[in-house]
Amino acid sequence: MDSSPLSQLTVHDATLRDGQHAVQHQLDVPQLRAYAVAASAAGVPVVEVGHGNGLGASSRQIGYARLDDVTMLETVREALPAGASRMGVFMVPGWGTGADLRQAASCGADVVRIAAHCTETNVMRRHLGIARELDLEAQAVLLMSHMTGAERLAEECRRAVEYGAQAVGIMDSAGHYLPAEVTERINAIVTAVDVPVIFHGHNNLSMAVANSIAAVEAGARVIDACARGFGAGAGNTSLEVLVAVLHRSGHGTDIDLPGLLRAADLAHARLMDRPPVLDSASLASGLAGVFSGFKLQVLAAAGAAGVDPLEVFAELGRRQVVAGQEDLIDEVVRSLKAAS
Amino acid sequence: MDSSPLSQLTVHDATLRDGQHAVQHQLDVPQLRAYAVAASAAGVPVVEVGHGNGLGASSRQIGYARLDDVTMLETVREALPAGASRMGVFMVPGWGTGADLRQAASCGADVVRIAAHCTETNVMRRHLGIARELDLEAQAVLLMSHMTGAERLAEECRRAVEYGAQAVGIMDSAGHYLPAEVTERINAIVTAVDVPVIFHGHNNLSMAVANSIAAVEAGARVIDACARGFGAGAGNTSLEVLVAVLHRSGHGTDIDLPGLLRAADLAHARLMDRPPVLDSASLASGLAGVFSGFKLQVLAAAGAAGVDPLEVFAELGRRQVVAGQEDLIDEVVRSLKAAS
Repeated sequence: MDSSPLSQLTVHDATLRDGQHAVQHQLDVPQLRAYAVAASAAGVPVVEVGHGNGLGASSRQIGYARLDDVTMLETVREALPAGASRMGVFMVPGWGTGADLRQAASCGADVVRIAAHCTETNVMRRHLGIARELDLEAQAVLLMSHMTGAERLAEECRRAVEYGAQAVGIMDSAGHYLPAEVTERINAIVTAVDVPVIFHGHNNLSMAVANSIAAVEAGARVIDACARGFGAGAGNTSLEVLVAVLHRSGHGTDIDLPGLLRAADLAHARLMDRPPVLDSASLASGLAGVFSGFKLQVLAAAGAAGVDPLEVFAELGRRQVVAGQEDLIDEVVRSLKAAS
Repeated sequence: MDSSPLSQLTVHDATLRDGQHAVQHQLDVPQLRAYAVAASAAGVPVVEVGHGNGLGASSRQIGYARLDDVTMLETVREALPAGASRMGVFMVPGWGTGADLRQAASCGADVVRIAAHCTETNVMRRHLGIARELDLEAQAVLLMSHMTGAERLAEECRRAVEYGAQAVGIMDSAGHYLPAEVTERINAIVTAVDVPVIFHGHNNLSMAVANSIAAVEAGARVIDACARGFGAGAGNTSLEVLVAVLHRSGHGTDIDLPGLLRAADLAHARLMDRPPVLDSASLASGLAGVFSGFKLQVLAAAGAAGVDPLEVFAELGRRQVVAGQEDLIDEVVRSLKAAS
């Protein structure tokens, strides 16, 4: 790799944002501070923080976070030494607004991820523009990206760049990909845009690290991961395993692995009851291509109705349900119950 | 794939043997029976059972199993319906003897794995011969196979076939491989022998499933796995994830996935305190290429001496320590303590 911006590899640490899904967004100030200090000491370049669904998402439907956005951002900002790790935030337009972006900027956010369903880049336009005006690094990510193909993803990413995105990419929100599928999509996106390409994996098929390596080898240059895989369902890409495997694969980063293992041990001990487990529900969810964040609600609704949760995941997959359509879980459970 | 014996894919379920490492070989009769029934109902072709280190290995140095070999084998034999899953056993010459093989045959074992360090196939010769005389299916596996290269492994496997092995292959005992390394080795072995080739993975680098798929795509036809990855350290290849991913990758098996998920849920609930976790110690062990079974002893010895366990793994890796050399753990801990 040469040293041009497109060739530098950035590991984007989503522990304090995507990990929140695993604890119903209940991380507190000492937890945020301790992890941010440890991650920064290891040289992690970006520490993302917030409600699991991003800025403005704390709500009755999705779940209230323990802390408001300002408290979360100010805590992490103070914990990150000047000139060390940058602070990232995540926002889905609709849950978050332009006002949330301005607030995040005033709290010292450096990088903002604007996210939308994989075929809906157009909804990001205004917020990518606001992020650029605020002089944040504006990134765009496509959710549930397995639901469309490589050409469409490349076209959506090209459009996001037109809207001002300075990095673009895809999330495997359901943990559905196998490496060859990642390779095909990242290849198409890398060919279509001239900004760094992002990949964000989940581990429902035990492929999060392998998929991330496939993404890097296809040209992706921003890879998301969480300490010990902290995240919903089967969890995210394990940050420390990713970095170790990147180093072994000849893709160097500036991250100090022993320091990163200390940060992961701290996360394991202090942020989570237990690390994510790839259990049968998570596997069924990944196979069916269902958003990882649905798992606990599916298990609760299926359990209450006496319906096989694996059939609920399969039917949700057939209906191509996406995040925000949680109400359909109950409808699917009722229809399976009626048919049984 | 055509239907010749070399093209059929056999998933070899090591839950009740390799999983024993995670519970100090303490599985009891109801646990063995319940899992064997569930695995067989799902159509798993081979159910392996025994002490984690195989026939004859129950001992003070390695750890006593709760049950003797005859009790374990008779329990599983009775639980497997006639004509359904075959019963497998594992044996390392030295821990096990010819008498152990005869006893296993009289208990109804169908398949026997003879194992040796990756460069020591010669020590398998007599026992492979005995297994053939007993009309068992004789398989040979090379332990800690990352410690030598593709050509040497192919040569060792070729020799095992000369000695009578009807299937041969490699174990990634330390969980050290990345997929390309598996591809290279399996390619070389498949070219060298005309019997089915075996791959057995561990998950220390989060690559157990990806490595197993790489092995299949390079021509391996017997793949080991354990329910929920039950096994030492970071665990083995997850059986149910492997089968799901094989099916998605176009490599069919005759295993019923919903039934397999029920077996995995039973294993999760009844065989293990908790599923294996890919923690920092397991990651360090895999990176250093240290046998997965050393983990608990390293953590205990390092903890008692106040030495960083990650440094102990690194030094054990540099010394190329293999299973059976557990005494060196204390020596390494003492030397690191003295140097600190």
